[in-house]
Amino acid sequence: MTSFLDEPHHDGSVAYSAPGAHRLGDTVPVRVRVPSVPGRAGRDASVVLRSVRDGEPTFRAARVDGSDEAGAWFVADLAVDNPVTSYRFLVDPDRDYRWLTARGVARRDVSDAGDFRISVFDPPPDWVADQVVYQVFPDRFARSGHDRAVPDWAVPAAWDDPVVHQGRDTAHQWFGGDLDGVAEHLDHLTGLGATVLYLTPIFEGRSNHRYDAVTFDRIDPVLGGDEAFGRLLGAAHARGLRVLGDLTLNHTGAAHEWFQAAVADAAAPESGYYRFGRHPDEYASWLGVPSLPKLDHRSAAMRTALYEGPGSAVARWLDFGLDSWRIDVANMTGRLGADDLTHEVARTVRRTMAAGHPDAWLLAEHGHDAAFDLLGDGWHGTMDYAGFSRPVWSWLRGGPDEPRVAQGTPFAGQPIPIPSLPGGAVVATMREVHAGAPWAAWSASTLHLDSHDTPRFRTVVGGGASGWVDHQGRGRARHLVGLALQMTMPGVPAVFAGDELGLTGVDGEHSRTPFPWSRAAEWDGPTVEVYRRWIALRRTHVALRRGGLRWADAGDESMTYLREHPEERLLVHAARGPHTPVRLSLGGLGARGAETLEGEPARADGGVLELPAAGPGAHVYRLV
Amino acid sequence: MTSFLDEPHHDGSVAYSAPGAHRLGDTVPVRVRVPSVPGRAGRDASVVLRSVRDGEPTFRAARVDGSDEAGAWFVADLAVDNPVTSYRFLVDPDRDYRWLTARGVARRDVSDAGDFRISVFDPPPDWVADQVVYQVFPDRFARSGHDRAVPDWAVPAAWDDPVVHQGRDTAHQWFGGDLDGVAEHLDHLTGLGATVLYLTPIFEGRSNHRYDAVTFDRIDPVLGGDEAFGRLLGAAHARGLRVLGDLTLNHTGAAHEWFQAAVADAAAPESGYYRFGRHPDEYASWLGVPSLPKLDHRSAAMRTALYEGPGSAVARWLDFGLDSWRIDVANMTGRLGADDLTHEVARTVRRTMAAGHPDAWLLAEHGHDAAFDLLGDGWHGTMDYAGFSRPVWSWLRGGPDEPRVAQGTPFAGQPIPIPSLPGGAVVATMREVHAGAPWAAWSASTLHLDSHDTPRFRTVVGGGASGWVDHQGRGRARHLVGLALQMTMPGVPAVFAGDELGLTGVDGEHSRTPFPWSRAAEWDGPTVEVYRRWIALRRTHVALRRGGLRWADAGDESMTYLREHPEERLLVHAARGPHTPVRLSLGGLGARGAETLEGEPARADGGVLELPAAGPGAHVYRLV
Repeated sequence: MTSFLDEPHHDGSVAYSAPGAHRLGDTVPVRVRVPSVPGRAGRDASVVLRSVRDGEPTFRAARVDGSDEAGAWFVADLAVDNPVTSYRFLVDPDRDYRWLTARGVARRDVSDAGDFRISVFDPPPDWVADQVVYQVFPDRFARSGHDRAVPDWAVPAAWDDPVVHQGRDTAHQWFGGDLDGVAEHLDHLTGLGATVLYLTPIFEGRSNHRYDAVTFDRIDPVLGGDEAFGRLLGAAHARGLRVLGDLTLNHTGAAHEWFQAAVADAAAPESGYYRFGRHPDEYASWLGVPSLPKLDHRSAAMRTALYEGPGSAVARWLDFGLDSWRIDVANMTGRLGADDLTHEVARTVRRTMAAGHPDAWLLAEHGHDAAFDLLGDGWHGTMDYAGFSRPVWSWLRGGPDEPRVAQGTPFAGQPIPIPSLPGGAVVATMREVHAGAPWAAWSASTLHLDSHDTPRFRTVVGGGASGWVDHQGRGRARHLVGLALQMTMPGVPAVFAGDELGLTGVDGEHSRTPFPWSRAAEWDGPTVEVYRRWIALRRTHVALRRGGLRWADAGDESMTYLREHPEERLLVHAARGPHTPVRLSLGGLGARGAETLEGEPARADGGVLELPAAGPGAHVYRLV
Repeated sequence: MTSFLDEPHHDGSVAYSAPGAHRLGDTVPVRVRVPSVPGRAGRDASVVLRSVRDGEPTFRAARVDGSDEAGAWFVADLAVDNPVTSYRFLVDPDRDYRWLTARGVARRDVSDAGDFRISVFDPPPDWVADQVVYQVFPDRFARSGHDRAVPDWAVPAAWDDPVVHQGRDTAHQWFGGDLDGVAEHLDHLTGLGATVLYLTPIFEGRSNHRYDAVTFDRIDPVLGGDEAFGRLLGAAHARGLRVLGDLTLNHTGAAHEWFQAAVADAAAPESGYYRFGRHPDEYASWLGVPSLPKLDHRSAAMRTALYEGPGSAVARWLDFGLDSWRIDVANMTGRLGADDLTHEVARTVRRTMAAGHPDAWLLAEHGHDAAFDLLGDGWHGTMDYAGFSRPVWSWLRGGPDEPRVAQGTPFAGQPIPIPSLPGGAVVATMREVHAGAPWAAWSASTLHLDSHDTPRFRTVVGGGASGWVDHQGRGRARHLVGLALQMTMPGVPAVFAGDELGLTGVDGEHSRTPFPWSRAAEWDGPTVEVYRRWIALRRTHVALRRGGLRWADAGDESMTYLREHPEERLLVHAARGPHTPVRLSLGGLGARGAETLEGEPARADGGVLELPAAGPGAHVYRLV
């Protein structure tokens, strides 16, 4: 069990820094909390700020800015010298020699890779931090009953049919959900507490997932077309919901009007939109799949059509009423062999959005370490699979009686299993992954327990593999610990439709279950209820949405952290199983006691706060 | 004490990879050594190669390629998909789940920052790996006795005068060493075993260090001018010595002919070479020092004059006979506020050198984490202060009876002291710092115990602070452990003239002692002798120059590593003090015994190799 409460702390949140728009030449006060430890008061420490200016480390002493029984606040003036300024702190340089970086505390010299980072780029829109996203896969959410022509690629299915998730029909099984169907069920989202509707692609395609767009100019008629999308936007906005669209800039479908024009005529302007070898048979494509030809971002005409400037698809659909964009396979976009135009693509999309719709959020899909792509001038944030989903899976599928590595659960297409790991190991991964990018990027990234690209989380943690609702206590209990982490960590929680019912699924395709509106009696009621409660908790408490993240403790079976905000300080304790009780010094917490907001009470006795030792379970306290 | 011998290993050396020129589309076999451990043979492991292709992780199984009693070799085909391809290995994904990266082994998911890296850029010149550099500060090495006019900035000193190292005369105290003086003493270099003469700046300047060049067109007349330089090059080349020059691209002196022209006339072409605010009084300069105005790398005319193309200073002095360039303050060059042109500067210098002098080495000064600047298309390597000098200082100044942080020894201008740290901590720093860049960059970087910018290493490890030769056993013993590390680690050892005599010095300026040729009786004889021996050992053993680096053990007081090469495998054991004996399994080492090449014999008994437990000391063995 590792206790972190004795360690100095800093993060990019409002309690420790000044989030917001910084400019070159600004001075930003950055604060460090130095806890008192036996024999040494926090205020007797010394703290030095190290930042890198024009490539050279510079040092500036921090000064005490208040102290109390639990420790002292130090503050230093960070000069914003470069577009991205990296910094860290040396605590007690002449005594104990501890470097404080975004990875934590090291009693030795460190590389710059874990430094805190602050940038001069406009921060993500302020509203983003307060959201809870609800993800809908349009073919599988709800049918409005409008009579639509069956598309020629479709293999029609009845709503209660089993989901085909392997073989040739996987992408063509068609349940017929549509946008008016989504509009009719928005009360479910608002009832749950969601604030953003995220729709996977709705441009016309030739599959049920539509990541193979045939155009960027019209919404798929089978979903109801532009008119239905306009109705859905109106209905969502009327309820205060924002809508997040899904756009692929990496490739189009082979049936896309551009690719068809390119194939028909090597001299067509659209031929320059793609990367042909010997025309028309040889061309670059997504992971070598010929039906998904890769776009060539060196083409100015393509950029203008797709994402550069006010006439582009990116801008036009925001004009139409869409609120934000999620960019599909952003990690691969613009990358091929010798070329790496990803940053330029991201910056251009950002510029286009900022010009006409400065309040729009730009979210990138990135399945692994996205640090190099998140410095702040491009994507606002990423789907945080690497820093949240994988660590949470690794922890909550494991336990003392579980094999170290459980078989048969690949993660989002990676042909390696998810390991079962102790809490300390996954906390280390979270800290390492998040250390690579500024706090602002982490705050504007989404937290997923799962998505249309992964098994259902309920299945991952042992809740069965039927593709239907799970009612067993074991899977539910661990699922709801994951939910607690999702709703109490920095980032924007994103719920995949049906998770709140207890749905299971063994892979991404299997998880795309038609939402069982007509079988509400079969929903896992306790799960629905707990979703409502945790989402409400997040929406009620600013510290859960905008507070810093300070680790208090990590054991094999439990993890404990503070969310600190000037208005309140909350303590979260999550356990995957029974464990030796975690005891924290109330003095060290700077608190007299802890009010229970969720879960079981903690016991305050003799200056010690003893947290519940049962598990699985999750608990939230307000420090008073 | 941490033992690493049970862990899988890979590095970029010839034993594990294929160093050299790679091209996009190449397949490079990369090898992993998996030791057998009790109950499990190495060959029963499974190993998966993960590389990132066009932004997406891809996985490929490794296959067994031979095994022995000690373990197994696995090999996988690494596709060189991008200019810099990052990769790592997952060992036993379905059992033990260990990621092997350049930072070592982690039993959890990791970010990509520690990945191994391979590039398509031309590798450093092959000869570089075999060198031992000897650094000369021209004013302080030797006087030829030629009659030279005293420069108007100079405060003349007699050769045996104490070195002024604080106050206004520091940069102007002039001892009158010159290039013919250097030429007369080249036998000292070759006698010691050095193969490269590194000269700090020799262009005309207005200080004893000449980092304030007044021209790039002529060698300082006070050093003997172009003619003396020609004679020195001839004499060096005749002895098989290469010569490494020192060039500042970040700034010039304020007296530089370009800056004078710029100040005299805002319309002069040279005005564009610098970064003026209100002409002529406001301009950017090195760390705000007005006598060192910063160059503007956006100026094509300046680039052409200084480093771009065959007519540039960079090319012309190579034409003149210079072999290589060291670039001063490379970390700041081209960096100012919103602009970061460092990579473009480095690539341009590299291109200029490659065009006319493909065998020239391009070495960059960089005092902290240089990983982002060393991906392979710019500087070949760096002065490895961060990955070698600081860790070695931190270790060898410390010990069980030493304070955790020793006072009063700033490192190369950083206003923070050098800590005293245990071996495990500094090994972790070395691994972390080196993990950020390709193996090729590490191999072409220089290993310094000290330089003209730091205290003398002898002083750092307790050998006194007089500025004169130290004869005490304590400082000598630790100094020679540092020397052993310098001569047995990857990189190019660089000896600062006088270190081999046991000279001391409390800061960079104090360390610039005139070389006491006439007082040879006062040299610390044992130190000179041991320098000769360790340099000879390095030059004799290819594994010390080109072998991989595999850590075997790290304790507070000792560190132990293998240098592995197809022709031989050496084991190095260095200790800063007495310690519990390190015992290694001969089976685990894949050896029957260990021949002593330097230091005390190790004891092989009952399948265990017990290394000497006394200290300070250093030992090298050949595994047989």
